[in-house]
Amino acid sequence: MKMTEEMLSKHMQPITGSAIRDIFKLLAKPGMISFAGGNPSNSALEPDVVSEVAQSVLKKYGTTLLQYGGTEGFAPLRESTAEFLKTCGISAGAEEILPTQGSTQGLDLLLNAVIDPGDTVLVESPTFLGAIQCMRIRGANIVSIPTDEEGVIPEAAEELIRKHHPKIMYIIPTFQNPTGITLSARRRPALAELANRYGVILAEDDPYRDLRYEGEALPAIKQFDEDGWVVYLSSYSKLISPGMRVGSAVVSNPALLRKMVIGKQSQDVHSPLLTQAIVDEYLRRGLLPPHIRRICADYKAQLDAMLDSFRDFPAGTVHTAPQGGLFVWAALPEGYDAQALLPACVEKNVAYVPGVHFYPEGGHENTLRLNFSNAPAPQIRQGMRALAEAIKEG
Amino acid sequence: MKMTEEMLSKHMQPITGSAIRDIFKLLAKPGMISFAGGNPSNSALEPDVVSEVAQSVLKKYGTTLLQYGGTEGFAPLRESTAEFLKTCGISAGAEEILPTQGSTQGLDLLLNAVIDPGDTVLVESPTFLGAIQCMRIRGANIVSIPTDEEGVIPEAAEELIRKHHPKIMYIIPTFQNPTGITLSARRRPALAELANRYGVILAEDDPYRDLRYEGEALPAIKQFDEDGWVVYLSSYSKLISPGMRVGSAVVSNPALLRKMVIGKQSQDVHSPLLTQAIVDEYLRRGLLPPHIRRICADYKAQLDAMLDSFRDFPAGTVHTAPQGGLFVWAALPEGYDAQALLPACVEKNVAYVPGVHFYPEGGHENTLRLNFSNAPAPQIRQGMRALAEAIKEG
Repeated sequence: MKMTEEMLSKHMQPITGSAIRDIFKLLAKPGMISFAGGNPSNSALEPDVVSEVAQSVLKKYGTTLLQYGGTEGFAPLRESTAEFLKTCGISAGAEEILPTQGSTQGLDLLLNAVIDPGDTVLVESPTFLGAIQCMRIRGANIVSIPTDEEGVIPEAAEELIRKHHPKIMYIIPTFQNPTGITLSARRRPALAELANRYGVILAEDDPYRDLRYEGEALPAIKQFDEDGWVVYLSSYSKLISPGMRVGSAVVSNPALLRKMVIGKQSQDVHSPLLTQAIVDEYLRRGLLPPHIRRICADYKAQLDAMLDSFRDFPAGTVHTAPQGGLFVWAALPEGYDAQALLPACVEKNVAYVPGVHFYPEGGHENTLRLNFSNAPAPQIRQGMRALAEAIKEG
Repeated sequence: MKMTEEMLSKHMQPITGSAIRDIFKLLAKPGMISFAGGNPSNSALEPDVVSEVAQSVLKKYGTTLLQYGGTEGFAPLRESTAEFLKTCGISAGAEEILPTQGSTQGLDLLLNAVIDPGDTVLVESPTFLGAIQCMRIRGANIVSIPTDEEGVIPEAAEELIRKHHPKIMYIIPTFQNPTGITLSARRRPALAELANRYGVILAEDDPYRDLRYEGEALPAIKQFDEDGWVVYLSSYSKLISPGMRVGSAVVSNPALLRKMVIGKQSQDVHSPLLTQAIVDEYLRRGLLPPHIRRICADYKAQLDAMLDSFRDFPAGTVHTAPQGGLFVWAALPEGYDAQALLPACVEKNVAYVPGVHFYPEGGHENTLRLNFSNAPAPQIRQGMRALAEAIKEG
């Protein structure tokens, strides 16, 4: 007998992931300037360093890296990540650190540990589309919190907490994906206070924190946590390599951490030890701070080129001007449809992600997300010119 | 406010994973001879080879291995795995192969794609405890199929299919975990036929297939598949390295594969490219066949030592005598309790997994699983003597 769609689980049947997939297929076109992804620049990646570090850790740890490891993660990486996070103002013990396959896995394990179908998750409006997909697969009821130029509005969050009794509030506080907006200093303790007062887990997803090109670093929301309600998710993807899939979750509540570990055990048993050991060695040798300084200098030039290029856009276009991260968010004048314009832009060898995909409820057709990390400044200027032309012609 | 258990999801609250975890903690004791794990021998692992291969692939592919990759897997590995599986008699195109983080992830992604809470999965009795945990987390109703010395009994499976309308039938056909039993040649086409006739996905989990120490290889159940109902799960964990977490799923139905890929995207975005490329290069250089021959020679000596040592066990003990794999299954005479005896055995520096953990419904207190791959033959003899003593004294 033939297999039909009915064989698939009810919770996965509506999840298609196709819109973004189709956009990413277009990027293979030769000559394409992509503002669509979230990739680091190739020049920020160091295969020679990774090769040398790989040799070094395989010599140091031998068969240990090739045997089964603990689901809780490679012990030296838990320690070095705890040290690294101290530089971000987060004082967590190694036993609170769960190495994950990028911060995506941290979020998914948290959802699994906490969310049953129908439970509510509050998110920023707009928010990371990958997170929306994780939440949909887990059956979460997603409710958007209004935001402004200072990030999520605590008073609005409180009202929604009282109304919906969410189990999780998902926040990307620094150089947010997709907007590039940073949650202001005064709102950070306010959100931690809400999480602790109402008993809502605040998932603080902070992979862009160290990509700051100007201004002063702000304290993490986690720094204001009192009873372990803030789970801090971070990633080495944007700092060392996304292809290695190493991130971490800081989970201060042992019972919650335990359920996340059990979930991970059933998903992949543990993360590969070789990639964990490479990142650990990278941290221990002190390679990260100078590397971050180097890539930030490049990314700043690319961001400046992008911001400068908006002058060619239709009058009335507004856009964010982030102090770091990988993304700028733009709203074309009302009436423009970024989704409908995309094919014409791709025709001119330039791509982006239409903003509609970052809103759980859809809409906002005039918005788009632009990534500036994946192309050098001259290409960014060229791509932005092509984009402005296509939009005006469209 | 303090976080309580109520914050955790209802589906994760009953999942504790503690029994096995406690056993594995005991293994850190110095001098312990462990028959408890499923680890390859350290002498079967080749850190120097992996180190050289890692350098080689980082030189060959450069930044490609450090950038984001496709969720569908590293394209060269999909091809080389398809070639490797041809040697197992499975003719699948590269586009049917999904590289996974060990065969565990393949099973979990399949469950996610197919199972809603309450759906039935048929399993062998007994079966792999990690699979039972995956199924419990996904909310599956687990029903055991009776087995005998030829593996699962097709007539019993058919009766249960008609009664329970399962969506998945999970079978470990070769050197089964935990029993070491191999599904007979005549039953393989019969099970494929049942899967295709009744429309049940047969998850064929076959990670031990190439660890054969005597007898002729049998065709995979997948070879008798007609309409894509058999999903073949395999792993390089037992052949190259469990710590690298590289396995694969062969999924012939494109709609099912697509849902598994979407599930993986939300769990880890993709598997690390470096570990995928290392395994790919290992395959392309033809390193696997001589390596398998070498480790099989060692494992055969270890298996023989274990089988030989049962003569010291209480009269009436029965055990399997597998032709390969990693495990022997033993049933002590009625009245013995392998769970209760474990502390006394650990006292004598020897450990195993009580059989009760491999039965979804519990019971079978007199059974135990013994692994022989993790210790050289003299240690196996020593450990088995200690075990026999502890059992007789207990």
